[in-house]
Amino acid sequence: QPVLVLNAGSSSLKYQLVVPESGHVLASGTVERIGEGGGDGGGGPADHAEALQQMQQRLRDDGVDLQAVGLRAVGHRVVHGGPDFSDPVLVDDEVLSRVRDLVPLAPLHNPGAITGIEAAQEAYDVPQVAVFDTAFFSDLPAAAATYALPRDLAREHRLRRYGFHGTSHRYVAGATADLLGRPLADLDQVVLHLGNGCSASAVHGGRAVDTSMGLTPLEGLVMGTRSGDVDPGLHAFLHREAGLSLDEVDELLNKRSGLQGIAGVNDFREVVRRKDAGDDDARLAFDVFVHRLKHYVGAYLAQLGRLDVLVFTAGIGQNSPPVRAAVVEGLGGLGLSVDPERNEARKNEARVISPDGSPVTVAVVPTNEELAIARQAAEVLSRG
Amino acid sequence: QPVLVLNAGSSSLKYQLVVPESGHVLASGTVERIGEGGGDGGGGPADHAEALQQMQQRLRDDGVDLQAVGLRAVGHRVVHGGPDFSDPVLVDDEVLSRVRDLVPLAPLHNPGAITGIEAAQEAYDVPQVAVFDTAFFSDLPAAAATYALPRDLAREHRLRRYGFHGTSHRYVAGATADLLGRPLADLDQVVLHLGNGCSASAVHGGRAVDTSMGLTPLEGLVMGTRSGDVDPGLHAFLHREAGLSLDEVDELLNKRSGLQGIAGVNDFREVVRRKDAGDDDARLAFDVFVHRLKHYVGAYLAQLGRLDVLVFTAGIGQNSPPVRAAVVEGLGGLGLSVDPERNEARKNEARVISPDGSPVTVAVVPTNEELAIARQAAEVLSRG
Ligand SMILES: Nc1ncnc2c1ncn2[C@@H]1O[C@H](COP(=O)(O)OP(=O)(O)O)[C@@H](O)[C@H]1O
Ligand SMILES: Nc1ncnc2c1ncn2[C@@H]1O[C@H](COP(=O)(O)OP(=O)(O)O)[C@@H](O)[C@H]1O
Repeated sequence: QPVLVLNAGSSSLKYQLVVPESGHVLASGTVERIGEGGGDGGGGPADHAEALQQMQQRLRDDGVDLQAVGLRAVGHRVVHGGPDFSDPVLVDDEVLSRVRDLVPLAPLHNPGAITGIEAAQEAYDVPQVAVFDTAFFSDLPAAAATYALPRDLAREHRLRRYGFHGTSHRYVAGATADLLGRPLADLDQVVLHLGNGCSASAVHGGRAVDTSMGLTPLEGLVMGTRSGDVDPGLHAFLHREAGLSLDEVDELLNKRSGLQGIAGVNDFREVVRRKDAGDDDARLAFDVFVHRLKHYVGAYLAQLGRLDVLVFTAGIGQNSPPVRAAVVEGLGGLGLSVDPERNEARKNEARVISPDGSPVTVAVVPTNEELAIARQAAEVLSRG
Repeated sequence: QPVLVLNAGSSSLKYQLVVPESGHVLASGTVERIGEGGGDGGGGPADHAEALQQMQQRLRDDGVDLQAVGLRAVGHRVVHGGPDFSDPVLVDDEVLSRVRDLVPLAPLHNPGAITGIEAAQEAYDVPQVAVFDTAFFSDLPAAAATYALPRDLAREHRLRRYGFHGTSHRYVAGATADLLGRPLADLDQVVLHLGNGCSASAVHGGRAVDTSMGLTPLEGLVMGTRSGDVDPGLHAFLHREAGLSLDEVDELLNKRSGLQGIAGVNDFREVVRRKDAGDDDARLAFDVFVHRLKHYVGAYLAQLGRLDVLVFTAGIGQNSPPVRAAVVEGLGGLGLSVDPERNEARKNEARVISPDGSPVTVAVVPTNEELAIARQAAEVLSRG
């Protein structure tokens, strides 16, 4: 019996129908341009309810009948769970209203998730489970979660490090323990999730103790179009010197910075291609990307005090041998290195790429957020 | 023959008359409230020229005659040297005009320095040397100095990591080599300058390869009233949610955050006192301060790939055994520890506080920015 996993944005709906136990995917896809047209054939579906109908039609076209497969549950990806949601939950009215309370923390993301949940509640008479991207980090130690801001302001506006990509970090940490055949509880891990968004986490015994994304998904590593860390004085500087408004600075840092800002392109494959062809900006983008990665690997090594395994995941982490090689370059004295042949091998499964007997294992472990959500949804149901 | 070291702010003038070779201080002090009153006895001196006269009067009162001592040079502390000044320079018209060009980068600091230089040029017929707080970091590797921002914007507005406290970091790195009796060129060091402002640097063979302050002195470690690192999305968040203007956010992050923000007090002694008395906010402030320090120690260990010595300096670094103990706690596996008795000893000289035979030496080395400036000024003269 599959779980339907939904990732609803304001104008798109990603779906996957997957069996939690086996990981077998019956169907997956994306419905786009929601709300951009009418239901009359031109443009996209009018709303999320119509998007679900479109999805069902596509499933039928693929020979999958949602009624016949015996849908077990719908698992919803919700970006922001705020300070309180530390686990997936069965959606009821109270949960929905709490997710609504979190809209100020994630104005671009949570509204889409709410609309998606409501549409799915109408459409399917099965349990709905919300899985939060922040949940894995909700128990960060206070010293890691707290910004050095006035306490009253921080309390009033719920300012703290939330972290994102939590479903991926949690899943990968678990899959890494499986790969190594060691109990999760025994491992100190640094997980690098390097996709369009990038984040690092420090995981001690299966619990996150630090992470690079913060109040918003803008902090930390260099990303496709996001700057990651900058001087907090930059905003006022750009306002004064370049005449930019705060909105313009925010847009700049989120949409026109990162690899895109330095290299002029945000696709990492293209950055590497241009670098290899001798493009100086692409070389700089690569170097800054790697420099920031080393920064966080070292920082989390210090927070953990020791390290069993460094794990690479997501689009760049799984597919870019040069990044993995560059991150551990010069870290042999700290026990980190990769075997060139293992690192270069093009495989899709979880694998170790450090030489046998390395003090610290370096691994590549594919992430699978949909499967993680499906499994967590199934787990919530089995708990009853 | 002494050098007169001047640190001119917009409304204050710190001075020290010191012999570069011996470090002997003939006199030192601060003239305050410049421009806040008339020359008529009420309020402070009218301008920096009058402040210099007031200083000379005080020197005479102390039995020091500037004419008679044979002043060798005046050394000026200039906060911002921009991308180009990588060394102290003899001040001439061209230098002054370049320092003026840098005012946009340091609107709160460089104007005071310029006024101070002009007043001293008028008053003393000796060479004037400008020593820049950023100079030690002007040759940072591009990967460390570059923010992931659009290249054209960065070029136009000279956006990069400049770093500050450079005179102190350079001086302390040298003094640490002296303490250890090893060539500076052979050492990998992490220097923690922890005063009212706090900054960390990674020093390889006497050259800075990374530092925590950035475009402005707001980035990096938690400080007395400055936040250090925050999510770059915080500004827009506070604007949207708390209705703060960009100027208000900037003021908040510079003046009401840091230790002050969390603990309600910015003097580190008081933070420790309250923590020891059981105050939860003070405990949190201490923990966040230490957490960020560990973050940078680890990050710079990774940038260097290895570490010979971790050095503590400035008010907190030199005087707070609990901070030093907390920073290395749990880092024994990385070779870092302190000997409790050495750490607790109240001494003012440079000293090692790690146990004999430690893989990484931990040291306390007093900084002396005035002496460093005087020495650099003397060096510029001797170069001719
Ligand atoms: N073979 C590859 N080599 C290098 N980078 C790759 C490769 N394949 C995909 N990527 C990069 O992975 C990133 C997208 O990662 P992904 O995890 O799919 O993103 P998302 O965060 O949207 O889930 C893009 O920057 C892409 O260029
Ligand atoms: N004995 C002490 N224990 C702990 N902190 C101290 C002690 N003495 C001074 N400090 C702290 O040092 C800081 C000032 O450092 P200092 O280097 O003098 O500052 P500045 O950056 O202004 O030069 C203050 O936070 C002060 O509380």
